[in-house]
Amino acid sequence: MIPLSTARRTIIDVDIHHNAPNVKAIFPYLPKEYCDRISEWGLLLPSYPYMNGGKGGRRVDANPPNGGAPGTDLDFMREHYLDPFHVEYGILTGEFYSLGSHPDAHYAAALASAYNDYTRDHWLDKEDRLRGSITIPKQHPLLAAKEIDRVGDDRRFVQVLVPGGSEKPYGNAIYEPIFEACVRHNLVFTIHIGNEGQGINPSPTGAGHVTYYIESRASRTQTMMAHMASLLFSGVFEKYPTLKVVMQEAGVMWIAPYLWKLDQDWKGLRVQTPWVKKPPSEYYRSNMYVSSQPIELTPDPALFVPMLDALYAKECLLFASDYPHWDFDSPRLAFPKLDASYADPIFYRNAANLYGLKPRTSSPDHT
Amino acid sequence: MIPLSTARRTIIDVDIHHNAPNVKAIFPYLPKEYCDRISEWGLLLPSYPYMNGGKGGRRVDANPPNGGAPGTDLDFMREHYLDPFHVEYGILTGEFYSLGSHPDAHYAAALASAYNDYTRDHWLDKEDRLRGSITIPKQHPLLAAKEIDRVGDDRRFVQVLVPGGSEKPYGNAIYEPIFEACVRHNLVFTIHIGNEGQGINPSPTGAGHVTYYIESRASRTQTMMAHMASLLFSGVFEKYPTLKVVMQEAGVMWIAPYLWKLDQDWKGLRVQTPWVKKPPSEYYRSNMYVSSQPIELTPDPALFVPMLDALYAKECLLFASDYPHWDFDSPRLAFPKLDASYADPIFYRNAANLYGLKPRTSSPDHT
Repeated sequence: MIPLSTARRTIIDVDIHHNAPNVKAIFPYLPKEYCDRISEWGLLLPSYPYMNGGKGGRRVDANPPNGGAPGTDLDFMREHYLDPFHVEYGILTGEFYSLGSHPDAHYAAALASAYNDYTRDHWLDKEDRLRGSITIPKQHPLLAAKEIDRVGDDRRFVQVLVPGGSEKPYGNAIYEPIFEACVRHNLVFTIHIGNEGQGINPSPTGAGHVTYYIESRASRTQTMMAHMASLLFSGVFEKYPTLKVVMQEAGVMWIAPYLWKLDQDWKGLRVQTPWVKKPPSEYYRSNMYVSSQPIELTPDPALFVPMLDALYAKECLLFASDYPHWDFDSPRLAFPKLDASYADPIFYRNAANLYGLKPRTSSPDHT
Repeated sequence: MIPLSTARRTIIDVDIHHNAPNVKAIFPYLPKEYCDRISEWGLLLPSYPYMNGGKGGRRVDANPPNGGAPGTDLDFMREHYLDPFHVEYGILTGEFYSLGSHPDAHYAAALASAYNDYTRDHWLDKEDRLRGSITIPKQHPLLAAKEIDRVGDDRRFVQVLVPGGSEKPYGNAIYEPIFEACVRHNLVFTIHIGNEGQGINPSPTGAGHVTYYIESRASRTQTMMAHMASLLFSGVFEKYPTLKVVMQEAGVMWIAPYLWKLDQDWKGLRVQTPWVKKPPSEYYRSNMYVSSQPIELTPDPALFVPMLDALYAKECLLFASDYPHWDFDSPRLAFPKLDASYADPIFYRNAANLYGLKPRTSSPDHT
């Protein structure tokens, strides 16, 4: 059933969710007053009032034998995912970005530092295939920049990660200290869906709160569209031409008609944003990336590749599995069979170039 | 330059913005206390903090010779648009839906009644090609239903119109009295972009307020997506199977990948919304419509018709011009040349069937 070329393919996966087995694992990195409050009150991070999918949002087969939660056991992750799927590099995205939607930015900053240190000591130090994301207190851009400066020289951290839910769209000038820090340390800025409508973030749609989880999933796409427009029209890529932005887990195919709309509107309105010197799609092609999971299949199979072309997948699409979440996209099954001119950049080369990851095997697949 | 078949085509335009020449035109329909407050304070309706396009948002050539604002003079509208473009029916959408985003629902209800009466007396009574939309105080569904009942038996009103910006997405159960009234009077429910982030509505994106008008335009699409998901997953079309919903001015091409995503998510999550018995795309095809302006052209012309097919344009797409707004889509120029199997339903038949409009000429174009 599985084409051998896919089964054997060496891949880079840009979205693997690791987590701490329990909150006490981060206590060694956290000031005592915060350990005390967490022991008494729990983390008090915002959470969705909606169900998720699968069993508690995770793959039912991803429970490690030690009884812990999926994503908490490195040995099991190796055996269950990294080895059999030939993951040459996997980028850890974690589960802690909801700290950026808590009202107390100092608490959020302390949690972010603790989680980043935990990730370094317990994951990056132990498995050379893995790379890390810097979780930041995005509600306070200056504290966020400080955290980026604190860990940003460790080259194993390859990006800064923020959730889709935010008080302002990420092109807003208030976030400039974060972009400056990213550029200073040559770090990618990644927006991963999450926390829309939670904590201090506004409601997840322009029409308020949604009712069901499936609507909440739809709102992730909408909010990512807001970030994309904001980044493009605020001139972020003119101001920080080396900055690269990844959009994660908001779907893929919407990018194409959205670019058509943005380019078309820009033609009629460019006089209002003269700092945007090129059509939005040109900034997208040079500075933005989109990760694949959950990728939409086209009901008409003949439309799949033309849609990939329309969103410049050969340059901008990165494979992501979302392991161990319930809607995991298997590297072998999520896509229809693609010829190498698509599969090589999507499953390997685009991520290798973006994150500066050097080939470590002699497999011919990853060139 | 213009193909004769298009230049001669008889059309139905589902989005023409008429307006009162000044606020005093609605005073005869408004209680004295509201006339007094408007004379003292103005309408106090919410407005955008962004620029619009063109000159004040209107076509520069649409100013009537009497010096009034575009869209306020029926004689000039006939001469400038209805006659030369062979508009057999035009549906008036007005400019007053922002009343639905005012904090005072009683004031909004009085304004809505006055504007609906003004539209009837000054437009529908005077031009048989025109049809009206019932503006409602959507922030108070029971008052809204009362207004629909008040004017809904006048068959010249063919739909109820609400703006995209709202406190809750329109599938929310709070709006049921409005849908019941629509069904009672066989009226279409139309969501026209507008008022996102204004007045009592939440911020226009899941990431807060946007900075520029071009981002605000992008947020309209996002908010329409929220309404669409809400209507589909709340089971509105199971509860009100005869209800028809039109989505106006939020773009067109996004519908296709959005349906792919919603269908795909529904397959994995349908257990959570068992009242949604069919794939979302099936409800869309039977109960939802999208109006064309502003339609996105595909940079690859070969993709235009496949995208129309993917969003079921032959069944669901309605031509709209948005006259006299600055981004008016000309019936002759907005689309690439289409064969009659597309042009007939899009420019005429879908709207005729949806709104129950009977052919009034012997032109062969509108069959």
